[in-house]
Amino acid sequence: MSEITGQNFIAGVRSAKGSTTLQSIGAADGQVIDLKFIEATPEEITTAAESAAEAFAAYRTTSPEVRATFLETIADEIDTLGEDVIKEVIRETGLPEGRLNGERTRTSNQMRLFAKVLRRGDYLGVRIDRADADRTPPKPDIRQYKVALGPVAVFGASNFPFAFSVGGGDTASALAAGCPVVVKAHPGHMVTSEHVANAITRAVEKCGMPKGVFSMVYGDRVGAQLVQEPAIKAVGFTGSQKGGRALFELASQRDEPIPVFAEMSSVNPMLVLPQALEQRGEQIAVDMASSVVLGCGQFCTNPGIIIGLKSEAMSRFTAKLGDELKAKPGQVMLNPGLVENYKRGVERLNALDGVEELATGESEGQYQGAARLFKAEKHVLFEHQSPLFEEVFGPCTVVTEVDSPEELQQAARSLNGQLTATLIAEESDLTTHQGLLPILEERAGRVLLNGYPTGVEVCDAMVHGGPYPATSDSRGTSVGTLAIERYLRPVCYQNYPDAFLPEPLKNANPFGLMRLIDGENSRDAL
Amino acid sequence: MSEITGQNFIAGVRSAKGSTTLQSIGAADGQVIDLKFIEATPEEITTAAESAAEAFAAYRTTSPEVRATFLETIADEIDTLGEDVIKEVIRETGLPEGRLNGERTRTSNQMRLFAKVLRRGDYLGVRIDRADADRTPPKPDIRQYKVALGPVAVFGASNFPFAFSVGGGDTASALAAGCPVVVKAHPGHMVTSEHVANAITRAVEKCGMPKGVFSMVYGDRVGAQLVQEPAIKAVGFTGSQKGGRALFELASQRDEPIPVFAEMSSVNPMLVLPQALEQRGEQIAVDMASSVVLGCGQFCTNPGIIIGLKSEAMSRFTAKLGDELKAKPGQVMLNPGLVENYKRGVERLNALDGVEELATGESEGQYQGAARLFKAEKHVLFEHQSPLFEEVFGPCTVVTEVDSPEELQQAARSLNGQLTATLIAEESDLTTHQGLLPILEERAGRVLLNGYPTGVEVCDAMVHGGPYPATSDSRGTSVGTLAIERYLRPVCYQNYPDAFLPEPLKNANPFGLMRLIDGENSRDAL
Repeated sequence: MSEITGQNFIAGVRSAKGSTTLQSIGAADGQVIDLKFIEATPEEITTAAESAAEAFAAYRTTSPEVRATFLETIADEIDTLGEDVIKEVIRETGLPEGRLNGERTRTSNQMRLFAKVLRRGDYLGVRIDRADADRTPPKPDIRQYKVALGPVAVFGASNFPFAFSVGGGDTASALAAGCPVVVKAHPGHMVTSEHVANAITRAVEKCGMPKGVFSMVYGDRVGAQLVQEPAIKAVGFTGSQKGGRALFELASQRDEPIPVFAEMSSVNPMLVLPQALEQRGEQIAVDMASSVVLGCGQFCTNPGIIIGLKSEAMSRFTAKLGDELKAKPGQVMLNPGLVENYKRGVERLNALDGVEELATGESEGQYQGAARLFKAEKHVLFEHQSPLFEEVFGPCTVVTEVDSPEELQQAARSLNGQLTATLIAEESDLTTHQGLLPILEERAGRVLLNGYPTGVEVCDAMVHGGPYPATSDSRGTSVGTLAIERYLRPVCYQNYPDAFLPEPLKNANPFGLMRLIDGENSRDAL
Repeated sequence: MSEITGQNFIAGVRSAKGSTTLQSIGAADGQVIDLKFIEATPEEITTAAESAAEAFAAYRTTSPEVRATFLETIADEIDTLGEDVIKEVIRETGLPEGRLNGERTRTSNQMRLFAKVLRRGDYLGVRIDRADADRTPPKPDIRQYKVALGPVAVFGASNFPFAFSVGGGDTASALAAGCPVVVKAHPGHMVTSEHVANAITRAVEKCGMPKGVFSMVYGDRVGAQLVQEPAIKAVGFTGSQKGGRALFELASQRDEPIPVFAEMSSVNPMLVLPQALEQRGEQIAVDMASSVVLGCGQFCTNPGIIIGLKSEAMSRFTAKLGDELKAKPGQVMLNPGLVENYKRGVERLNALDGVEELATGESEGQYQGAARLFKAEKHVLFEHQSPLFEEVFGPCTVVTEVDSPEELQQAARSLNGQLTATLIAEESDLTTHQGLLPILEERAGRVLLNGYPTGVEVCDAMVHGGPYPATSDSRGTSVGTLAIERYLRPVCYQNYPDAFLPEPLKNANPFGLMRLIDGENSRDAL
């Protein structure tokens, strides 16, 4: 285990030119951890961004195989973060050991999955339209593929110290795309961040990558400058709506605006349909309660609102859900700030006219969050921009009953943009309420059936995105292999002889890619 | 030919609630055309946007085949716009008959090409990861495809009254994606716009599409409101940097920000390399001059800057280019405003220290633009944010000479975002100057060899896009079939039984799509 120095990682050099220091706080005890992190100076941030731009010219043209090996080396280095590191992460985040071990493996496997994508090569999106000299006017030879956007600024989330942070999905997809990365370390887990940054730095060295391909800066106030650095060409962010929106606006107001992929806010509606409630309401309540308190509710995909048709079965379900949540033990939240934030969210709900708290779980001490169940009258749901759609980050959910299938559709239509939307339903429910699914599809990035959104599979087909305010750009996903497309743009070559074309576009098809040739998919050489 | 009423097209209804009127101006004579167009009122604009949102629910779920037939019907209707319509377009735009006939065909063929894309189905981007119940935790079934974003506001360009306007590429790609369209008619060719809107309206009726799928509003001041209408979910724009940037900022500042694809500004650098100049400098000058004056230089891809190595051959090329441009007859520009704008651009160049006008072509009367050749000292090129990179919209180009291959690379590096970048080169030049191509690829959407960028092929592989300020989002193209992706976003289904999945995701693969199944491309049923 490397020693923690608290210095910034500036293109392969540890640097601490500033005098402002930050410290991590133990999640479970609120105690300051005795390690100092030095906030990056404006000059250090500029150096990180400009080094990334300098590295970009070489890194973007590395072969997919070279980048795949680099990602696999990062994965191996992340896997070496052992029990002693996990102990420090537990201290910083309050997350349990089993979860963190799993998350570390998920993170290294994510790197390996992007290595697979690089070798598969479909991300290159090759399209070839061959010349036709006999046409009037003559048709030129045009060949398209996708190239990297440029250096990416990554803002990790507090809630996944491995999987959505320094070495998480944004970093993996950006590095895979051929984009150098400058990470702003999350102040909630700086010790963890430094360990992962060391792992990535070792991989950079082992693979002989240009040093500027990875930098990481510490600091509370460094984010605004980072997004405004001219050398930065895209931003990946996971966090609050306020934070994501602020970065989005800074990025839009630059002389050269850049794309921002901010994954921000979602209440992940659960529509529980009548037949399902009749047949297995109790089990649904049990499973729902587990999903609500998973990770102390600190998931972007936490089920924050449950909507059903008024019925005996719905009442029984609600009562059972309350009993389940009451019995859930309190859990340490990621940091004292989030405990305060959760408190404010609960107070906000309690202050709403037509909302009552039905159940409160256990909690011990001031650093734990207790499970909560609220019930809202339907008029609160049907308010314009309902206050129920404002995320409460923590182990909390709100049940609402509506009176008719039409009102259920109305409720679905009233939803704003969501990461997920779920139907808990029997097949007969789906048939009776078949109008719901297309409405949910319009409002969410992922629609689930009889599952809970808190599990986010890392795979080709996953979408962890959705219309605003779930994200700032619904055309992207921050989980799954499609995430690479956020950091790519198309370029075409017109009339270049084979010898001067990039490898993916050459006649011989040296990468063995599936290519769109004159409108037909083919792996053939030309 | 339909009669011109000057009324707005609001979801299938002609509407003229306002009292402000606009008139088109003859390009060749500056005379007001005796037809009045009624500026849309705020209520009419809102109705158009809300009708589009209402139509969206039905239109987005039409089958690709239904939309393909709709696009083909629009194409057929555009083809019926005959000689009498073309005459009116000539009067409004000053463009010659041959060009307009070609452009009309290009426009209808573009609709047909998107019909082909819909039938091919690869735009759906289907990815399937099958369940694995034996894994711990069990792996869910996840299936991804792409869906329409929502109603799109289209701002046509003045310079292609058919191909980049009411029925142009933005409208074609948005309708193909499943997005209703609200067009803001360009004030430079309102008669043309009304004819095309009538053609599209006839197709909407013939195909029984929801009326809100197409609207068109007249007015100078309607654009800002249209972009801010909550029902509008994306914007397609072709025009000036100032106009595009203004719309981009309005869209970013909305409560719900929306993506803007603004194709704005490019000087389309031409790098002429030594061997090519030695071997065929004269022919290059002849071809270059033709490209510069094509369409009176009113193309987004007009070659606005020519960079070469100082040499005898470069001097001969420049002299010949001047002779060619001097001999070019003046051409009527699209409207008197553009003539004034061109004059100001020429004055700006003439006022620059280190820039001189080498040659001036002919022109007759106040509505024509004359070809111009400027020469700039290299220090002007190497200024930070060189004034040479500010587009002069018209038949004008600037030659600059640098002193070494290193300076040529420095010049390439100094370029800002471009739609195109071209090398005029022999193979030996490409070998000698092999560092140039990767630099150009970083800065442009399309790189050409020994061709002229003014021809933009409509095909699968075309990229008409590029880094800012060429466009506001380099990840899109506004020409070619990839343009459809600007208006799509991914959605995934988790654990839905086959019967409730959208057609493209069903086991049987009813559309016969190439799908990514468990990481392998396959057309097989499951």
